[in-house]
Amino acid sequence: MTSRINKLYAYLDHNQLDAMLITSPKHVYYLTGFATEPHERFLGLLLPRGEEALLLVPALDYDAARAASSVSIIHTHSDTDDAYEILNKLMPKGIRSLGVEKDDLSVRRFEAISAAVGATTYVDIGLPLREMRAIKTPDEVDRMKNAVRIVEEVLRLGVAKVKPGVMEIDLVAELEYQMKKLGAQGPSFDTIVLSGAKSALPHGHPDQRKVAEGELLLFDLGVFADGYASDITRTFAVGEISDEMKKIYGAVLEGNVRAIEAIRPGVSFGSLDRAARDSIEAAGYGPYFNHRLGHGLGMDIHEYPSIHGRNEDLLLAGMVFTVEPGIYIPSVGGVRIEDDVLVTPDGVEVLTSFPKELTVIGS
Amino acid sequence: MTSRINKLYAYLDHNQLDAMLITSPKHVYYLTGFATEPHERFLGLLLPRGEEALLLVPALDYDAARAASSVSIIHTHSDTDDAYEILNKLMPKGIRSLGVEKDDLSVRRFEAISAAVGATTYVDIGLPLREMRAIKTPDEVDRMKNAVRIVEEVLRLGVAKVKPGVMEIDLVAELEYQMKKLGAQGPSFDTIVLSGAKSALPHGHPDQRKVAEGELLLFDLGVFADGYASDITRTFAVGEISDEMKKIYGAVLEGNVRAIEAIRPGVSFGSLDRAARDSIEAAGYGPYFNHRLGHGLGMDIHEYPSIHGRNEDLLLAGMVFTVEPGIYIPSVGGVRIEDDVLVTPDGVEVLTSFPKELTVIGS
Repeated sequence: MTSRINKLYAYLDHNQLDAMLITSPKHVYYLTGFATEPHERFLGLLLPRGEEALLLVPALDYDAARAASSVSIIHTHSDTDDAYEILNKLMPKGIRSLGVEKDDLSVRRFEAISAAVGATTYVDIGLPLREMRAIKTPDEVDRMKNAVRIVEEVLRLGVAKVKPGVMEIDLVAELEYQMKKLGAQGPSFDTIVLSGAKSALPHGHPDQRKVAEGELLLFDLGVFADGYASDITRTFAVGEISDEMKKIYGAVLEGNVRAIEAIRPGVSFGSLDRAARDSIEAAGYGPYFNHRLGHGLGMDIHEYPSIHGRNEDLLLAGMVFTVEPGIYIPSVGGVRIEDDVLVTPDGVEVLTSFPKELTVIGS
Repeated sequence: MTSRINKLYAYLDHNQLDAMLITSPKHVYYLTGFATEPHERFLGLLLPRGEEALLLVPALDYDAARAASSVSIIHTHSDTDDAYEILNKLMPKGIRSLGVEKDDLSVRRFEAISAAVGATTYVDIGLPLREMRAIKTPDEVDRMKNAVRIVEEVLRLGVAKVKPGVMEIDLVAELEYQMKKLGAQGPSFDTIVLSGAKSALPHGHPDQRKVAEGELLLFDLGVFADGYASDITRTFAVGEISDEMKKIYGAVLEGNVRAIEAIRPGVSFGSLDRAARDSIEAAGYGPYFNHRLGHGLGMDIHEYPSIHGRNEDLLLAGMVFTVEPGIYIPSVGGVRIEDDVLVTPDGVEVLTSFPKELTVIGS
């Protein structure tokens, strides 16, 4: 926690800001270890240049903040206080430039802050936070491995329930039930189970459609556990499937493997996307892989970086993201195979270990 | 839909605004019938004074918007367009004052809008939207009744699973499983099941604690169905409970009934809170009813109005809110009984019908 805050102080110095105010509960947690959901009440972590960091929390959160926060100077406001007036008193005298999270701050709250503080410049501090979050610490990697472990067990239990005639929503319910049972906080996004031709709809919704023999069955699911997300997709054959479906499966798997083989520090995100796309194009399915290769994963299910062909940023050790090529043939079906990967100093560690070979289920 | 938009045009005229821009997907849905989740892409409903309303949507949403939206002028932007430049061209010439949702707009997006549009004043339009949403139409009431019907069936099924030794999280999993099975979109908030002394913790979390005989067991749950929320709390006796617990239960039920009896158009929200609180104080438990009586319910689980003792706003026919008094005795247990109510022209219709008499379960 302290080293994260120190990085922000370095950013503060480098950019000549007078102070930085972090107001999103997620980033307050990330920087101090104190997790809370203050709803409409004000919560802020203030880093004044050259002075110690301090928290301003609702009075009813004081004990919890004291117990959990690595920042030890904690001020409070009660429901009858004007939190912004207190905030202003805590600001450095004559403040001119203040860093705020422009993506995570409503206009309403920003107006209250700026009216109270009266700085002349408000600078977005989304970038340093995003870049810091992209490089996972060993503790974060451990939490993500645990979230992966849970979701893979959930997937195993869900797959065991597949038989012809079961409805997509029955399987969704079973999967989300097992998430809770296994100790996850909950799904990291709306669980996707799509059968038959519906598997070709990237934004399809599970419904009462029944799983049938000879079809593809796509599962895309994840959990939040200890504040971190996992995300996995596997596609199965329900009974015997057509040669075309098998060929699609093979092409997606090949694309997935090619992209993962290319992962190491120093290569570009775009090169990973191209590795998968070249392979899928060579198999003749280029136009049917119609989305990006993947996305960063962490405290959010979709976070920086975005893994697409035009992203020439370079991979760094400690990044965790998804690799999820897919091929979607209208009225035939779709296959997507998604892994979560960690960039290591030497190459890659694939966090997901659920088998990827085409597997027949439901019989 | 059209009458909702007309109300906003009236507000526009009355407040002499040049235009109004609605950017939250929820309010675009509420006003046009078109539901989408555009993520980082721009979505906007523009109401220019004296001109027809128009939508600006991501190009990939065009067909869906065409099919669902009551607003028929639909412009699009692709991922390579500058959506804000297009927005600016659609604005009335020489625009000076623009209404925006300051609670639902990030500083980042607001800066992009204001840089493109260049108005001199930006006025918050949260109030007219909030007030309109507070009065439910018959269609909205029907959706809410359906959400109540589902959650009550879920609760019945969950209660049937209670026996000494079952864990709180087992019951949560069962309840959320049944929500999906019965066709809800999902829980409208994290499902709460608290047993024994934990029932006295208003912010307690369900965990591996096991239900035991002689204890109270509190369920607080709701679902989203067709975009609208339900919310119900019932507290049960697991086997034989103490006389003190029975007395608490009776006092909460009396408070709940007193508040509901007081509901009719024209009385204040504060008077409802006081009706429940006076009754609970008379029973000797005043200090243990330490939260507001309830909250508005609709597309959000917590929305305008807030039902507390200092809210002297008056009830209007068509409002839907919760009535949920509770008594929480540390290390003994807590009881809360929560109903969803609709204010009618004559009085009140209680939407929840799950029995409220003290019920022994789990034997």
